[in-house]
Amino acid sequence: MGKILDGKGLSDKILNKLADSILENNYSPTLAVILVGNNPASEVYVSVKEKACNKIGIKSVVYKFDENTEESVILNQIRELNENKDIDGILVQLPLPKHIDKFKVIETISPQKDVDGFTLYNFGRVALGLKPHCYPCTPKGILTLLDEYKIQIEGKNVVVVGRSDIVGKPLANIFLKRNATVTICHSKTKNLAEITNRADILVAAIGCPKFITAEMVKDGAILIDVGISRVDGKLSGDIDFDEVFDKVAYITPVPKGIGPMTIASLMENTLELYKSHNH
Amino acid sequence: MGKILDGKGLSDKILNKLADSILENNYSPTLAVILVGNNPASEVYVSVKEKACNKIGIKSVVYKFDENTEESVILNQIRELNENKDIDGILVQLPLPKHIDKFKVIETISPQKDVDGFTLYNFGRVALGLKPHCYPCTPKGILTLLDEYKIQIEGKNVVVVGRSDIVGKPLANIFLKRNATVTICHSKTKNLAEITNRADILVAAIGCPKFITAEMVKDGAILIDVGISRVDGKLSGDIDFDEVFDKVAYITPVPKGIGPMTIASLMENTLELYKSHNH
Repeated sequence: MGKILDGKGLSDKILNKLADSILENNYSPTLAVILVGNNPASEVYVSVKEKACNKIGIKSVVYKFDENTEESVILNQIRELNENKDIDGILVQLPLPKHIDKFKVIETISPQKDVDGFTLYNFGRVALGLKPHCYPCTPKGILTLLDEYKIQIEGKNVVVVGRSDIVGKPLANIFLKRNATVTICHSKTKNLAEITNRADILVAAIGCPKFITAEMVKDGAILIDVGISRVDGKLSGDIDFDEVFDKVAYITPVPKGIGPMTIASLMENTLELYKSHNH
Repeated sequence: MGKILDGKGLSDKILNKLADSILENNYSPTLAVILVGNNPASEVYVSVKEKACNKIGIKSVVYKFDENTEESVILNQIRELNENKDIDGILVQLPLPKHIDKFKVIETISPQKDVDGFTLYNFGRVALGLKPHCYPCTPKGILTLLDEYKIQIEGKNVVVVGRSDIVGKPLANIFLKRNATVTICHSKTKNLAEITNRADILVAAIGCPKFITAEMVKDGAILIDVGISRVDGKLSGDIDFDEVFDKVAYITPVPKGIGPMTIASLMENTLELYKSHNH
């Protein structure tokens, strides 16, 4: 009964369109990526982003720093990139080592180059329901995917499980702006299953494999799975896909769901920033 | 069965404490208020704020502009006040005339003097769960009142009806930071009564007199009424007070509930800004 929301398919379509547009118009967008330390997951993410850039004609430059690099070095690098007219977007791969103040680093990025939409300026505008320079990539990808399948959002009960700064919080604000009734749940929520059971659209963004089980989900709901964990060598989302599949109207798979949509949004953002700059 | 959350009483207590502190320490905080046009409600609000300032020893200076004043004149006035070391807080009374861009005006206020917490910097920090220079006054007043009565917030289902930039949105973020499970409802919400009926703490901030009726409220709930309207010459909140009173655990009255708490928060914010500046 469930239908797959094919994030991979839509992502490929978007990337192809972007590649065509870049080629036809002779655009030369450049994304700067800052990577500090040797977190293996971060290295994978950065390499996925680099590959997407290469594929569609965005130049990517990775600035790699040692785990012990002083904060001031990172801040100076960002300031230099802010000034550099050849750079359109600046992405700092999170998490950062503990001795570095994440908020200070993010706030140093010029909002006009903040391709992840993490600065207070862009985050705050999203929270106010105003257009930012860039929407954060995962929430943007989720909305793009829902819109592709013409899923109505206005008036729907949306439940977001997880309140991270990069997914849960901005996503709740975007759904609110789209006239959904939004509930945001987290580790301190009581009777979670009762709340998720009322969701027309349920987003799981917690990072616990198969946390959302069939009895937590309403018949005919639309499920968005942002989680991605490796369990016994196999990738798994936050939703028990096999268990819920027959019950729901739509669901995003893991992999090939929200992950590729996040990458597509990052590429869209980079190109939008490029166009907004004077070249 | 219901108990009154006595906003007026707590507000008086706070104002007395602030007055003592200002007198004892020989503080000289100054609040600048910008009022554009002749909106009668705005004139009342400004005069209430002035009176509170006078009462506790905060100097208030009202900059009154004609309805047709050009936006640039207002922006220049704010820039001047930003530079003026004698000014601690800047408040622009809303609403502004339609030819003036509210967001531009607010963004011109220095975040360090943004006594209402409306700038993207302060609003964004609240949305991220970080400490702003100032919390917006009404949400701050609500939390202060709940805390005074030792009402637990963590794990509670909080429903906020109304998604304004100055009450609903920041309030939802503050409750989220305090580990409540937060639902935000608005004019496009379907089955509102069903949702409000699940609220342990229900906040009405919509501006429709007696909109929340007894059948929309759970037994033993805690009700916060932010609305204030004049009906047949009598002030009324968004909640049908008489109808719900026997059903609920606590409720804020209108008047003498959240209104005075908002003023108390504004005074607290002004003094906090004063202390944070070099005098």
